[in-house]
Parts: sequence; C-alpha cells; structure tokens
Amino acid sequence: MPDQPNPSPENPPRTPLLDRIERPADLRGLSIPELARAAEELRAETISAVSTTGGHLGAGLGVVELSVAIHAVFDTPRDKLIWDVGHQCYPHKILTGRRDRIRTLRAGGGLSGFTKRAESVYDPFGAAHSSTSISAGLGFAVARDLGAKDVGDVVCVIGDGSMSAGMAYEAMNNAGHLKTRLFVILNDNEMSIAPPVGAMSSYLSRLYAGEPFQDLYAAAKSAVNLLPGPLREGAKRARDLVKSAAVGGRLFEDLGFSYVGPIDGHDMEQLVSILRVAKARAHGPVLIHALTRKGKGYAPAERSADKYHGVSKFDVATGAQAKAPSNAPSYTRVFADSLIRQAQHDEKIVAVTAAMPDGTGLNLFAERFPDRCFDVGIAEQHGVTFCAGLAAAGMKPFCALYSTFLQRGYDQVVHDVAIQRLPVRFAIDRAGLVGADGPTHAGAFDIAFLANLPDFVVMAAADEAELVHMVATATAIDDRPSAFRFPRGEGEGVDMPERGEVLPIGKGRVLREGAGVAILSFGARLHEALRAAEALAPRGIRPTVADARFAKPLDRELILSLAARHDALITIEEGAVGGFGSHVAQLLAEEGVFDGGLRFRSMVFPDTFIDQDSPARMYAAAGMSAEHIEAKVLEVLGLARFGAVRA
Amino acid sequence: MPDQPNPSPENPPRTPLLDRIERPADLRGLSIPELARAAEELRAETISAVSTTGGHLGAGLGVVELSVAIHAVFDTPRDKLIWDVGHQCYPHKILTGRRDRIRTLRAGGGLSGFTKRAESVYDPFGAAHSSTSISAGLGFAVARDLGAKDVGDVVCVIGDGSMSAGMAYEAMNNAGHLKTRLFVILNDNEMSIAPPVGAMSSYLSRLYAGEPFQDLYAAAKSAVNLLPGPLREGAKRARDLVKSAAVGGRLFEDLGFSYVGPIDGHDMEQLVSILRVAKARAHGPVLIHALTRKGKGYAPAERSADKYHGVSKFDVATGAQAKAPSNAPSYTRVFADSLIRQAQHDEKIVAVTAAMPDGTGLNLFAERFPDRCFDVGIAEQHGVTFCAGLAAAGMKPFCALYSTFLQRGYDQVVHDVAIQRLPVRFAIDRAGLVGADGPTHAGAFDIAFLANLPDFVVMAAADEAELVHMVATATAIDDRPSAFRFPRGEGEGVDMPERGEVLPIGKGRVLREGAGVAILSFGARLHEALRAAEALAPRGIRPTVADARFAKPLDRELILSLAARHDALITIEEGAVGGFGSHVAQLLAEEGVFDGGLRFRSMVFPDTFIDQDSPARMYAAAGMSAEHIEAKVLEVLGLARFGAVRA
Repeated sequence: MPDQPNPSPENPPRTPLLDRIERPADLRGLSIPELARAAEELRAETISAVSTTGGHLGAGLGVVELSVAIHAVFDTPRDKLIWDVGHQCYPHKILTGRRDRIRTLRAGGGLSGFTKRAESVYDPFGAAHSSTSISAGLGFAVARDLGAKDVGDVVCVIGDGSMSAGMAYEAMNNAGHLKTRLFVILNDNEMSIAPPVGAMSSYLSRLYAGEPFQDLYAAAKSAVNLLPGPLREGAKRARDLVKSAAVGGRLFEDLGFSYVGPIDGHDMEQLVSILRVAKARAHGPVLIHALTRKGKGYAPAERSADKYHGVSKFDVATGAQAKAPSNAPSYTRVFADSLIRQAQHDEKIVAVTAAMPDGTGLNLFAERFPDRCFDVGIAEQHGVTFCAGLAAAGMKPFCALYSTFLQRGYDQVVHDVAIQRLPVRFAIDRAGLVGADGPTHAGAFDIAFLANLPDFVVMAAADEAELVHMVATATAIDDRPSAFRFPRGEGEGVDMPERGEVLPIGKGRVLREGAGVAILSFGARLHEALRAAEALAPRGIRPTVADARFAKPLDRELILSLAARHDALITIEEGAVGGFGSHVAQLLAEEGVFDGGLRFRSMVFPDTFIDQDSPARMYAAAGMSAEHIEAKVLEVLGLARFGAVRA
Repeated sequence: MPDQPNPSPENPPRTPLLDRIERPADLRGLSIPELARAAEELRAETISAVSTTGGHLGAGLGVVELSVAIHAVFDTPRDKLIWDVGHQCYPHKILTGRRDRIRTLRAGGGLSGFTKRAESVYDPFGAAHSSTSISAGLGFAVARDLGAKDVGDVVCVIGDGSMSAGMAYEAMNNAGHLKTRLFVILNDNEMSIAPPVGAMSSYLSRLYAGEPFQDLYAAAKSAVNLLPGPLREGAKRARDLVKSAAVGGRLFEDLGFSYVGPIDGHDMEQLVSILRVAKARAHGPVLIHALTRKGKGYAPAERSADKYHGVSKFDVATGAQAKAPSNAPSYTRVFADSLIRQAQHDEKIVAVTAAMPDGTGLNLFAERFPDRCFDVGIAEQHGVTFCAGLAAAGMKPFCALYSTFLQRGYDQVVHDVAIQRLPVRFAIDRAGLVGADGPTHAGAFDIAFLANLPDFVVMAAADEAELVHMVATATAIDDRPSAFRFPRGEGEGVDMPERGEVLPIGKGRVLREGAGVAILSFGARLHEALRAAEALAPRGIRPTVADARFAKPLDRELILSLAARHDALITIEEGAVGGFGSHVAQLLAEEGVFDGGLRFRSMVFPDTFIDQDSPARMYAAAGMSAEHIEAKVLEVLGLARFGAVRA
C-alpha cells in the first residue's frame, strides 16, 4: 500500500477494485495484474478489519494472493475450497460476500473466526482444529465420483504445521490409494502458531534449502513463464522444470501424489498459471507446494510472526496492540510458574505439549529446562502415548494441552495411560467456555470422558490459588493417572499461596456453612456460587457452598454429609452432562439417598454448542452465572426470584 | 518340523533346546544354528499352544525368528522390547518365563492375548490397539537420555498395517526430530487383519517390487555375509549394499531415520548380524525393514493368512478349526445384511471402515457394492472426517467401527461431525464387554462420549431384530449425526423382521407392564432384565420392563411416566457411568422428580477394567446378569434375595 496513507478505522483503505468484487465469480474476468491489485486491496482491507476486531492476522495475510488466485481459477462454490484450521480465512470471507460483516469477526452475533458451513455456501466444510481438510476434501471428491450433485473440483489448503498431525498423513495415504482427482495446496510458511517441529518440517525446509532461495524462485518463475503458450507439452515441461528445481517432493510422490513446487505463493502470475495447468491436467491427487510468508505485506506482522498470529485490536500505523488492564495472573501463567517451581526440586518432571508451547505456558518451562520440555508438534495421539512411555520409564510427565485438543488423544488416554494405570499428569488448559474462538475450542467434554476411566484422578481448579495446589498434588500422585483442568484467561485475583500444597486425594472443602440447600461446585464456578449465596443472604436463604476439588475420586463423605444435612443439593461444573454431576447422582443413587427424597439438581452446559461471545456472556447463555445459580436455589426451594434471569 | 510327527495336545512337540531356555539371557550363548533350531522349536510350541487355546496365530508365527534374534542380541529386560498391537507376542511370552502358562492364553485368569505390563518385566509397555509402539518407545528412549534407571536400548516392532495410522507417522516425525537412539523394526508381511490399504502399503511394496524378490534376498544375504569381519568399514559397506539393493527407504530417511533393508525376517543369520551391527553403530533412530510371512512354517496358516489371523481351537494335523454351533446370527452379520438391503434402494449409502472389513461385516457390503465401500486403513481419525466430507456432499455414510476404536476418532466426531451437525451414521460394533480380547477391546465409553454431544441421536440394539430397525432408522436420519451400538457375538435368537422399520426418534417401548419397580434398559441387557422379571414373578414382584432404544434424545414422556407410576426406577446399560443412566438422572433432576422421593438406581459398569473371560462371566463380574438385576430390584424395594448373587 505504498500509494495510500496508513488506513485506520476513521480512514479506511481505498479499495476501488475490491469494491467491485461482490462474489468470487467477479474475479474471473480480471487480468493477472488486476488480480494482483485486487489482492493488494484485499490485504489492506484485512489489516484494517482485524485492527478493529482483533483475531488471527498473520495467517490470513500469508494467503491473500492464494485466496484470490484459487477463487479466480476454480469455480467456487461448485468447486469446494476447504481451508485447514480456518484461521486464515478472513480474506476468503471478504471475497465471498461477507465483507459487510467482516468487522464483526469473533464478536458475539458476528462472523466466526473460522470457516463455518452455516455462514456461507463458500464454506463447504468448517474447521478450527487442524489437519482435517484433506480428509474432508477426499470425502467431497469421492462423493463427486459417485455422482453427488453440485460438487466439482476440491481444493484443500493446509499449512506446513498441520502436516505434523497424523490425520493429514492418514488422509494423504488414503487419497494416494484412491487416486481420485484432488488438489492439496501446501501453504508452507514455516510457522504454525509456534515454529513447527518434527522431521516433516525439516524435510520441507530441505526442499528449498539445498539451493539459494532466490535461485529457486527464479527457476520456478522462468519455468512458469513457459506456461501460457501451447499448453499440453509446455505445461509438462514447466512442471518438470519446477519439480527438478526443487530438491524433490519424493515423499509426497511416494504417498501417491503428484508434486508441484515449490512455487512463490505471493506471485499472482505463478499462482494462477500453476493452478490453471493443474486444473486442466490433473487426474489423481496433486500436491502444490506454495511458499508464503506469514504476515506478508504488513511489516509489524512480518517481523514477529508469532506475536501477530492472534492479535488484539491494534494501531495500523504503529502495530501497537491494545492490552486490556490485567488484575490477576492468567491461569496459564500460574500453571507454568507452579510447574517450574516443582521441577526445580524434582528432576523427574518433564513437560510435553502439542504445538502449543505459548498457549500452555510451556515456553516458560522450556526456557528454564530446555532438555525436559518436548513440543511434539500437532500430534496429540503421539504426545499422550509418548508421555505414557516416559511414565513407564519412571519419569513424571506433565502433558499440557487444551481440553478441546485432548479429544485428539482420547484413545491413547484410555488405552495407553488408564488401562496401564500410568502416572501421566494431564494439565488441561481452556476448560469450559473460551470466548472468541467459539464452540470448536470449548472444553466441554473432558470431565465426562476422563472421570469415567477407572483409577483416574480428576481435579478442577476453583481459582488460581487452587491451581498451584493441584500442580503440587499431581506431582505427588505417582501411582495412577491424574488430570487437573482450569479455565482460559485470568484468575479471580485471590491471594496466592507461598507454595503449592499436596491436597488430600478425593477430599473437597466447605467454604460457607449454611442450611437448607448445599451448592457443590467443581471448578471455577465456585466464585459465582459464592456470589449467589451472598445475593440470597438478605432473603434469609443461606446455602452451604462447597468446592469438590475432585470429580474422581468423589468425596463420598462430604457428599453424603451434605445430602444428609440439607433438603437439596445442587452441583455445578463447567462441562456437559455425564461429568461431575452425573458421578454425584450415581453415588446418591447407589447409596439410596434419593429414597429419602433429597432434592437434587445438576447444573451442566445446555445441550447445544454455544456460539462465540465474551466468556461472561457465553456462561450467561449457558445458564451458569451467579444469578442462574441463585434462581436454581430458589427453584429447588419452591420460591420465586425477584426479576427475570438474564439469558 | 520335518523330523517329528504333527504335534497335538496328546503329543506335544519335542523341544529339547527350547526346554533349556528359561529366560532370554539363555539365548545369548547360543550359536546362530542353535538360535535357528530354537526358533523352529518355538514355532512348534506356539502352534501346539494356540491349537488348544485359539487366538492369534499367523502374526506370532511370522515373528518367531525375530523374537529369538531380538532377545539374543539385546539385553532384555533392561533393553525394552515393545511389540506393536501385541497379538504377535505369544512366542515372546514363551521365551520370557511364561511358557508354563501359555495354554491359558486369553482364558479367564490366564495370560492376556496381548503384551501386558502387569504380567512380566519383559513387557515394558502393553498394547492391543495398533500403532502405539514408536510413541511409547520414544518415551523410554528420552527417559533413558534423561537418566532414567534400568532403561537401555529400545526396540519397537511394528507391522506394515500399523504404519497406516497417523499416530505412527506422528511418532516417527518426532523421533526423527529428536534424533535419539531408537530401533524400529518394520515387520512387513503385507497383511494386517485384512490386506493393508493405502499409499504407504504400495510404497512398501515398491521397496522390493522393483527387482525380483529372490535377487533382493540374495543381495541382502551376500551383503550381510560381509559383516562378521572387521566391522567399522565392513558394516558401512554392508549397510550401503543392503540399502542400494532396495529401491530405497527414502521416505523413512526423509523422516529422519536411518533405513536398513529390506532383510529376510526368517533368516536367523541375517537378522542377528544386522541387529548386532545396528546395536553397535546406531546413533539416532534406525528403521530396520524386515520381510516376513504371516503364518510362516504352518502350511494352513500360510495358505490363508486372513483365516488364521485369529483362530479358534484347531487340529494341528489338518488345520481344521473347531466351530461352536451357532443358534442365532451374529450382530455383525445382521448389520451387514441390513445395510446391504438399505443400500439396494438408496444409492447414496456408502460404507467406511478402518481396517476391519471382516470384523464389521463390510466385506459383504463390499462384495455387493465395491464402489461404495471404503477401507481407509488403520486410520480412524481420517475415516470419521472422510465420512463427514461425504455427508457434507450429500451422501449417506455409515462409519462402521468397533466401539473401542471409535475412541481414536473422538475429536473428529466432535469437531467435524457433531458441531457441523452432519448426518454421519456410526455403526458401533463390539459395544460392551467383548470376551477373550479383554479390557483393551471393551466398548465401555461410547455412550458417555457420544450422548453428551448436542444433536446426536444415540441408539442401542436390544437384540438382532432391533438392529435391523436401527439400520433403517439411521438411514432415515438425514439432518444430524446418529449412532447405533450393538454387542459382539450372536444375537438372542429372536424372530427376525421382514424388513427394517424406521423407529420413531427418541421413543422407547414397554415390553412388560408391571408395578412398583420399572427397569429401563438401554441395549442388549434387556433380555437379562426380562429374565430377572420372570424370576421375580413367583414372589409376586412384577417389575415393568422397558427398552429405551435411545439414550439421546431421551424418551421424556416414557421416563416421566415410568417415574410417576412406580416407586422405583432402575436403568441398565452396557457402559460406564456418564452415559444413559446419567442422562436419565439429569432429566429426573431437572424435572424435579427426585423431590417426590423417587427411588432411583443406575446399573453401569463398575469402576474398574475387567479382565478377559467369557462375555457371560465378564458381565457377571460387572454385576449385570439377570440375577444382579433381580437383586437390585429387591434392594430398591428393601427386600432380601434368596441365596447369594454370584460375582
């Protein structure tokens, strides 16, 4: 954007060509220079939009040209364009009829930060977790071959980081076997959230490290320059030239793909030419290897690609990101500090994550203990069993993952950890509702799917001080698997303990003694429960409030005592049905407590996926804020609440 | 065994050399010809043992020489030998102090059919599901590097079929990155349970298909003959020779492994020499590619490797397998026949499985509709999302998996199917307890982890007739995901319907009207509940017995009506806590039914992994047979049962 001043919310970028693009079909009559110009304007609009909404910036800027080129060459939406992860799709959303809402990205009621089927016919398959695109694309391609209506070509765009996941390999393995026509564009920016790890990443680097970078580009370009002529032979020569210019894509060819690349993912002429040739000639699966730069075209994002992966609102001119004032340390930070402190005294502690070192705080652990920290890449299946192996050899592995991504390693949790009763410690970040990332990133199911495994210890931190104790407790549990979950974001601002103490296993605590109704919380809703109790006090209603700490083993003594001493028991947890409340109900049933007429309620997530919003509003939508707890207490007592409860 | 008659239970094989092997260390003083002789005797003993126990035969026979060679060269148990899947470990068990119990394989109280940590120090990591060995082995190797005690070298043996799983790729990707010393032996017999599929399998074939098989063997042999001489240069030359003799293991080298092979996995001299050289010289991860033959050395098993993958008791001389008389069709067969019938009238129906075409009955579907049946290999993650893609394109995919293996694709069920509300139909075989395969193959968790997903329809078949209807019902559910689960083995022998009928969604049925107590069953315990009701009749106790059919959506009307008309409600299901009973409890709580003092019990699996035995005895151990239901009815009524309940 050298020809215009830095855009700002008050001074939006001038985009005369982009303004004429209402749908992708409008790109198809444009010349290559016009497409390049449209891409420039699209980049400016993307920067401008994200500066007001926050969100994923670098990834989208890296695929601006690719987005334009694919829509220009392929017949979307009949041809299916499937973005892996989907956080790079903002330019695509602008091109596909959603420009008018692009400044609502990730806000409540606004556009999703990912691709989403419900949002547009141009999003044939939603995403958010990585490495699903080739599997989904192969499904479309096979359906087309079987006669499905309105399915043409299928184009999957997958990043190099996503290639570390076994799922991508499984899909390529199957696609190479089925031999159906399918386009996979490997968007290689050497940078997923964190720098990618693993042998595949080194392999990709070698594909262009053998010769000076620019030479390769030059070779690729001159090869492509041959294309627009008489195509049949020329294209073949061009492709061979491009291929031989690289060290070779044999690994992909061994898996049954034709390999084209590497090509310059920011060179519109190259992109359009290669895509046109591929479209005209491909029979089976084709892998097009495009080199891109994350944050391309926006200097602050190019300079620190990791800091601009996900951004808050920022000033376009300076790149300065807005920072909300912070009152309490984040749970993630508290976890990392606590684990570091434990590890100082226990050299058997090792930490493992799957491509989320920053998100889990293990980057801090790695700084302190570089030899004891392992980022396995986007590879939760392997990561969990790797931890099981470490534990079997006598180490104390902490497996730090987001709740939603632990789902990827569930069979390994069951088969390799639980059945063998190996002491792997699962540090589960982002438990519960997570805000702007929406339902795909919610941690709703882990209580249910862990607490039903024999011998597991399952904890949830009520606040950041509790988290400190749970890290210490997990360190001490050396005879079976354990897990502790904690929310995304900041803590409650409570006083922090000097040091973590090992909690008594399977024991809860009573914070507020009352009568009539007992509220038993598992996790960080505890403070909402305390607020509800506070609000009820003026009416003379004094609920007991307790923190279960453990969903497994249950504190039988506490629960049965609460049941005996109260008319009603209410459980609350940040998760779906089947978890803590279900275990409590099972205990009450087995002990015959219901026979005595105990009033019982279990507050769990409603049976729906909750769209993105602020976490507070998402919890309100889930019926889990203090006033909902208050209303539940009144309901179980047969009393009415003053005023309606906000939904 | 040319020098002895066919062994039989009455005429066990003569094994003079094997009789002297009490532990692996006893192999280490033997010459190569002696090791070869020990392997021959080990093979005869394996055949003899499995002929009396049934179990996995072909896989073990394929690795007899490998088992002997690894234990002879490596210092087990300090060196860790990790068998992938573990069903090839019978010869290993015989060598590692378990020969005296080898004829108890897979029986109640006997040896597990897989490796198991609790059984022996020679089993450092248990298995049963595939593709976990490299991850676990890397855990041991890293622990060793960090100073873990009593961990030496690590040897993982993984089959070519297991290489189709992304988890194996994730592990290799990470091992190639970490560069630690690790031995992976690729046991390539071109045959997992079914012939392997996928591009990786084709790639492996090309590794020796380029030249005549025997030439490669000869080249490898002559190369290895160079080894015992002065090693430092000789070994390098030998390795290079072996490598260049093959088409090349570049794919593995691209992933950071040194590649050696292919070698003859039945040639003791070659095996021992190569393993010795590798042990002496390896620095980083090494992949040794050994070609073996499934069923090697036992003609009936070599001839039909698939029929001898898992066998019942058989006659060693003839190879004839004992067949139990069958009174009812298997659930698997009923599923397959029903799906074929539906597919005859609906060309959108496609079927997907993950390396279990025979186990799920899809081999029959594939015979009838070869173009509409997809075996994706051991690749559940991809398989589930592939189905999601097919559904998004308008097809009607049935994803047929065992319950325990569906765990591998859980995140894909949540993220790609449920959140997008795509109508993938999950046909879940082997739900509940499964018998000889034991806890690793139990289908205990799927009710909990599926029924907590918004919008899912979750069904369980009470018998084989119900299964026919549920296939029809799943076919008709085209606006959201659905699943139906059914047990392993034979049905109840009930009358079969002419055709499948579409069941009303979320509606159960009452089979026996009674009073006082209602038993609400989800799944195939229904017939046990009916037996319990029958047994109680003489005492004047007449429980109502109902079949829920659906865990989701729940039949609210039926459940609330049962609760209103009875003093007590008992649920029963073949699964762990968190499933059907928990959903019923949640409904009763929300509706305030407990406030009225309803007696409630939920019969679920106990909180333990149940060891292998006959399914009937496993259900008795789980407290889920007719007499346990009878006892539960009496308990909830405050009455005593005549006689003790068998545990």
